[in-house]
Amino acid sequence: MPGGRPFISLATDFGAAYTAICAGVIYNIAPAANVLVLSDEITPFAVTEGAMLLRQALPYLPAGVHVGIVDPGVGTSRHPVAVETGRGDVLIGPDNGLLSPAAEKLGGLVRAHRLENPAYRLREISTSFHGRDIFSPAAAHVASGVPIAELGPRTELLPLDVPRPVRADRALTVPLLYTDRYGSLILGAERPDLTEAFGDLPYGTPITVSWTTPEGERAIEVLFVETFGCVARGEPLLWIDSSGLLGLAVNQGSAAATLGITGPVTLRPGY
Amino acid sequence: MPGGRPFISLATDFGAAYTAICAGVIYNIAPAANVLVLSDEITPFAVTEGAMLLRQALPYLPAGVHVGIVDPGVGTSRHPVAVETGRGDVLIGPDNGLLSPAAEKLGGLVRAHRLENPAYRLREISTSFHGRDIFSPAAAHVASGVPIAELGPRTELLPLDVPRPVRADRALTVPLLYTDRYGSLILGAERPDLTEAFGDLPYGTPITVSWTTPEGERAIEVLFVETFGCVARGEPLLWIDSSGLLGLAVNQGSAAATLGITGPVTLRPGY
Amino acid sequence: MPGGRPFISLATDFGAAYTAICAGVIYNIAPAANVLVLSDEITPFAVTEGAMLLRQALPYLPAGVHVGIVDPGVGTSRHPVAVETGRGDVLIGPDNGLLSPAAEKLGGLVRAHRLENPAYRLREISTSFHGRDIFSPAAAHVASGVPIAELGPRTELLPLDVPRPVRADRALTVPLLYTDRYGSLILGAERPDLTEAFGDLPYGTPITVSWTTPEGERAIEVLFVETFGCVARGEPLLWIDSSGLLGLAVNQGSAAATLGITGPVTLRPGY
Repeated sequence: MPGGRPFISLATDFGAAYTAICAGVIYNIAPAANVLVLSDEITPFAVTEGAMLLRQALPYLPAGVHVGIVDPGVGTSRHPVAVETGRGDVLIGPDNGLLSPAAEKLGGLVRAHRLENPAYRLREISTSFHGRDIFSPAAAHVASGVPIAELGPRTELLPLDVPRPVRADRALTVPLLYTDRYGSLILGAERPDLTEAFGDLPYGTPITVSWTTPEGERAIEVLFVETFGCVARGEPLLWIDSSGLLGLAVNQGSAAATLGITGPVTLRPGY
Repeated sequence: MPGGRPFISLATDFGAAYTAICAGVIYNIAPAANVLVLSDEITPFAVTEGAMLLRQALPYLPAGVHVGIVDPGVGTSRHPVAVETGRGDVLIGPDNGLLSPAAEKLGGLVRAHRLENPAYRLREISTSFHGRDIFSPAAAHVASGVPIAELGPRTELLPLDVPRPVRADRALTVPLLYTDRYGSLILGAERPDLTEAFGDLPYGTPITVSWTTPEGERAIEVLFVETFGCVARGEPLLWIDSSGLLGLAVNQGSAAATLGITGPVTLRPGY
Repeated sequence: MPGGRPFISLATDFGAAYTAICAGVIYNIAPAANVLVLSDEITPFAVTEGAMLLRQALPYLPAGVHVGIVDPGVGTSRHPVAVETGRGDVLIGPDNGLLSPAAEKLGGLVRAHRLENPAYRLREISTSFHGRDIFSPAAAHVASGVPIAELGPRTELLPLDVPRPVRADRALTVPLLYTDRYGSLILGAERPDLTEAFGDLPYGTPITVSWTTPEGERAIEVLFVETFGCVARGEPLLWIDSSGLLGLAVNQGSAAATLGITGPVTLRPGY
């Protein structure tokens, strides 16, 4: 954290205003900070989507303090934590799996501490806005030089509970992790999962994608391509997105709106 | 406003781009400023929602210059104003009630002045974008040290026109102020209003909530609880939100979508 | 770009997170930069909407480096470019017409160069996120003092492909450029186009607006007014918006939702 302008990012499912209140709390404690809103529009309560975002984004942000808040358990027994990573970042948020994939990506977890020390919280703690009352003050104090060991007792970090791809007889069933802004479906598989299931999979390979609906099984035929522009406008495609995850999209359209997929899909090379 | 980095916040119903244009105008006049977008997504024309946001958020932001713009009367006879508060902030926006609750919360109104001095406006004034042409330049000049008395003549500040809770025979009818990002219904009552109507109201108290629809009266039974996690997923609840207002929510769901409430509701303890 | 705090703006159709990743890449290369998100919510793939936004907004932003990304051709043969303007800005984005109207507005194009020098890109280039891998690093390096001639070979800039108003017998047919946040329809005509077609058009002039739907021709009668408040709430109006373009709106309502216009409209003075 160079010369008096500590870098702090915020990623939440709060929308603009509540996220900006967090930034305001940070500026009160650390007036010289450079606060970047990484996202204020994670789908409400979508822990997996938030975890994938942090994992994808944080390697491209300066090392610093990164606050992640998607917290359906706010006010219950889940713990607020600070996590030091191998790269030298401190991740702050609820211990519900949200921070774990990013910590792994940033050089691995070095240590985690609970946020329990009242000296580094606001004086009054609401039951529903720990972003303002607990996470943001902790982030500002850490960015100002407070060691995370002072925040509270050491703890373990819960892993993210995300389903793995399942192989069966030249088929791979992969979970739907989330839908992005363009309506593209981001799936829980990476290139090594594809290679393991199907061997080498060159661009241009046709793949049958099937899924279950209340009315029965549906399937479409899709090309596995390098990028959107490889298929005509309105055509579906499978590609590896910029975070390394497999995605199912429609070129200049919305796969979510067109296909109505809301759960796992099964991939089979060939039509 | 410490050492050359004056703090300015912007809260608007403009969306991202028009709000950022306001920030650009500010940076042109006050290049060292720290501009925080408090919100660019207030519901269009929703003065009450904006007023409640400013009242809730500004106490958590650094003292500084705070611009609030929800301005259905832009281009008509309503006045643009700057308001000095007891805490030392200057609030800038239209005189339509938007700024009044926040001014009260920030130590009360010290003085208000109209924004009439052409020296502190852009040279050309459009009829529909006073955020860019009048409010932002005024904010930047005040943040750079111009006393608000130089902006224009002294004036009174209009109060916010918001309905009060109404008591009748062990029942309290409260207005719907706005719906938040999660679909929770934020109501125009605070804990003292509840206590005055019902006496002490411990967490866990069952409450009947009723409202009028085109098809007649509807009612549901709800628990008054401390936080969302106190009821099962999908269950409704009443709680005091982080701004001190009563809210009607569905745990990890949307009360607005589930209940279809668009106006005042009546509360009665017991089922 | 004054004393070590270079100004960089970002306008994209990426949503918050991918835009913030771009900001993160910039801060890694140019840690002292002042990065303003001009917009992260341009309609996906809407090059004309993005171009109109840049043309409207950039004159109000400090001179600096301005990144614009609406890039349906990402990963195909379209070129990434940097454009120096007469005002002294550098515009960075895809060469698909997006930057051309803004360059013209900012004093005209001085020179344009392709972004080909690998020294000013990230080491790995994805096929779908050139905002992160190519545009943002270029912007940060230029803001840090790299001359644009070092980025790659000189090139021409493609114009924006936008339909012009068409006159016929006291009628003017104008394209729909985009719909704004309020549901107002922004049309491809400016005051000089109106004057050329109809002569002087005083405020208060009634105008018949017609358009084609699948069910046939539709028409409404609208006043041409100075601002929204000149007509009653819920009434339609034609006005010149703050960017100088003709707009069709409903006072405190949504013209898009009310009228269902999705293509060009024809204007005829009088009812």
